Amino acid sequence: MTDLCAELERTWHGEIPISKAMGIRVEEFANDRLVVRAALEPNINVHGTAFAGSLYAIAALCGWGMTWLQLKTRGIDGSIVIADGRIHYERPVQTEIVAECRFASNDHAEALSRLMADGRTRFPLECLIESNGHNAARFTGDYAVRLKR
Amino acid sequence: MTDLCAELERTWHGEIPISKAMGIRVEEFANDRLVVRAALEPNINVHGTAFAGSLYAIAALCGWGMTWLQLKTRGIDGSIVIADGRIHYERPVQTEIVAECRFASNDHAEALSRLMADGRTRFPLECLIESNGHNAARFTGDYAVRLKR
Repeated sequence: MTDLCAELERTWHGEIPISKAMGIRVEEFANDRLVVRAALEPNINVHGTAFAGSLYAIAALCGWGMTWLQLKTRGIDGSIVIADGRIHYERPVQTEIVAECRFASNDHAEALSRLMADGRTRFPLECLIESNGHNAARFTGDYAVRLKR
Repeated sequence: MTDLCAELERTWHGEIPISKAMGIRVEEFANDRLVVRAALEPNINVHGTAFAGSLYAIAALCGWGMTWLQLKTRGIDGSIVIADGRIHYERPVQTEIVAECRFASNDHAEALSRLMADGRTRFPLECLIESNGHNAARFTGDYAVRLKR
């Protein structure tokens, strides 16, 4: 794991106690793709599958983490909050929870320019949760970023 | 707190460990209005306000709890899962988290009939989270119910 991934995981566990209770871990950040994981057990629900609230929270953190990594790798100091979130559950998750977010720099070039020009912007991001090789949930979130001056 | 509210809270804490980590409590169920609460501290984020994932999870549980209560009070044994969730964050929550869901029986009469006729239905529900007397987040979820036969 890179230093940045370790710093992201430390930030989550240190400053968002529920992320630690969920056992979220940063697996990989490479080629603008972030993968995070969490064991099923702490996130189980009444059906013995992953709790819908945990799936949302883990996907939302994955998108937040992607935004944080994009700022960090550009040397930008910004504050990130999620303004809107939507999730569609396709099938129950009966295994470890794996969430993935991709950041296509071309798609976000305008949003990045706006951040530097106006001091604020929004990144719409999608995160997918898979289980046993199938797509289990599709999350989209709007991340509002403001430069810290 | 009524016996049903105590049973709901026991079900959450016993079968959804993350709901216990979040400290969600059932405050009141009366006149088709359910109120749940959670302290800020276990749900805090990097900004010192409520974690967006906790707000979603608490609102989603509030809607699930409302569906559970509607089935229980009608003597219906059903399985409830959330199929879709959306949340709009309006302002940060810097206090205890309070979520409220209302169930207008008239609006759901058709969905209830469908449940009894077909053994399955969906209830679209809205939950509001308030902070310091202001609306802080607006959640809507589609709850899929299937009769246990």
